Amino acid sequence: MPFVTQWKLTLSYDGTSFHGWQVQPGLRTIQGTLAHAIAAVTGETVLPQGSGRTDAGVHALAQVTSFALQSPIPPRNLVRALNSFLPSSIRVLAAEPVPENFHARHSAIRKTYEYRIFERYPSPHTFTNLDGPDGRICPVFLAPTVWDCRWKLDFDRLHATAARLIGEHDFAAFAASDPDRSTREDASGHPPSTIRTVFTSEWWRTDETLFYLVSGNGFLHHMVRNLVGTMVDLNRNNLPPIAIDAILASRDRTQAGPTAPAQGLFLVSVEYPEVTP
Amino acid sequence: MPFVTQWKLTLSYDGTSFHGWQVQPGLRTIQGTLAHAIAAVTGETVLPQGSGRTDAGVHALAQVTSFALQSPIPPRNLVRALNSFLPSSIRVLAAEPVPENFHARHSAIRKTYEYRIFERYPSPHTFTNLDGPDGRICPVFLAPTVWDCRWKLDFDRLHATAARLIGEHDFAAFAASDPDRSTREDASGHPPSTIRTVFTSEWWRTDETLFYLVSGNGFLHHMVRNLVGTMVDLNRNNLPPIAIDAILASRDRTQAGPTAPAQGLFLVSVEYPEVTP
Repeated sequence: MPFVTQWKLTLSYDGTSFHGWQVQPGLRTIQGTLAHAIAAVTGETVLPQGSGRTDAGVHALAQVTSFALQSPIPPRNLVRALNSFLPSSIRVLAAEPVPENFHARHSAIRKTYEYRIFERYPSPHTFTNLDGPDGRICPVFLAPTVWDCRWKLDFDRLHATAARLIGEHDFAAFAASDPDRSTREDASGHPPSTIRTVFTSEWWRTDETLFYLVSGNGFLHHMVRNLVGTMVDLNRNNLPPIAIDAILASRDRTQAGPTAPAQGLFLVSVEYPEVTP
Repeated sequence: MPFVTQWKLTLSYDGTSFHGWQVQPGLRTIQGTLAHAIAAVTGETVLPQGSGRTDAGVHALAQVTSFALQSPIPPRNLVRALNSFLPSSIRVLAAEPVPENFHARHSAIRKTYEYRIFERYPSPHTFTNLDGPDGRICPVFLAPTVWDCRWKLDFDRLHATAARLIGEHDFAAFAASDPDRSTREDASGHPPSTIRTVFTSEWWRTDETLFYLVSGNGFLHHMVRNLVGTMVDLNRNNLPPIAIDAILASRDRTQAGPTAPAQGLFLVSVEYPEVTP
């Protein structure tokens, strides 16, 4: 039996021109494009497993994927060779051999996402000639990576609302209505339930962008986008932070807000237990 | 005869997904997309004139275009309505009524371009784990707007080479070999020659990007990209700044370097004489 190495690959991608992570016949996907590059480099056909699927238009600063290869190849050479085959919208940042039982999804213990909103009406804000009735114009180079949100948002209230999500909750109200996918999109190996633990849930900002940073032990399908859509919805309707408690408690998707657009979402990092090789 | 207003529109675009400025049958272009939006807003069919064509993949921070409309519409409303019809990769930044003899190309007296190169080997540079034999990895969100140049470049020498281009010169060596287009891509109304005056020609840099800034009274087709390709070519071959003088003097395209990739080029601004309405 040939010697096999299990690989952990960290990659970044601009999801704009891909139909999400998962291989789909006839569509350009991250997983499919990566599998093609691996085959070109090694001659081996593998299906790299992701830490989770990302939907069409969603980006990754550091997605993690795992697969096994027979070809002996130094990690640096694997990074170099894959990057020379991949389009510039996907970059392999690191490659490392890992124990054979490592699995990008099953082994994950914590995932972090970020959601970016362009502020048309930042506060405090000096109005300029460019401010029309619709506020500031979203720069064209920012547009593929933000939600160009049309409402004026109250940062402090967003932040206070987000803080109420920290802890272990049943997030059924924020799961995609597709019942099959919503309970499977989970990073770690816990049973198919809608209970998850959120470790970090906070907003921060720069001059032109609001960022929602959330980390947890796993996320339901569409959970981050539904949390953002709901927080924005409460905010623009002047509802207090505590209003999100009743939505959580309802476990009812129809009580939550709309799903925020895909292009504002970034998978930031995936964490694993310390490995003793 | 109906009352007609001549308009000057300033717009920004991400050229990545367009086949350049100029209308072409069956292809998505900036001019065609803008004409479509104008028709949707006003019901009028016009062909907006640009200050010059930009090639496929080239971006604009502030392209200028002019056209005449019969519809009476306040400038702010025109900006707002066009932006609601245009894709997020094209934004109208300003609209103003101008004298009827204003023409975006013929009236221009100065244009400024910027060219961006990602530095794989910045100097000084602390090497990190991410540095492979190919240097730093170009971030996926930067890739559509830079040349991910594989060579180590000497900033001071680039800057000294660029300075030798300032002034009035015959830039025939840097014109696209297509003889028809190369002498017509000019901003102002001077005769079809290959003589142009460059006012500014300099490099500057940030942590990860080199910028070439060049302004002049007009540019030949591919001139900026050929200047950049030539400066990089001299640089990586350790040739002194003065080497560009002989290339200029040759008036021979084959003496200059290759054309730098389109995606690093930005039209930054177009200037016009002060107008007294």
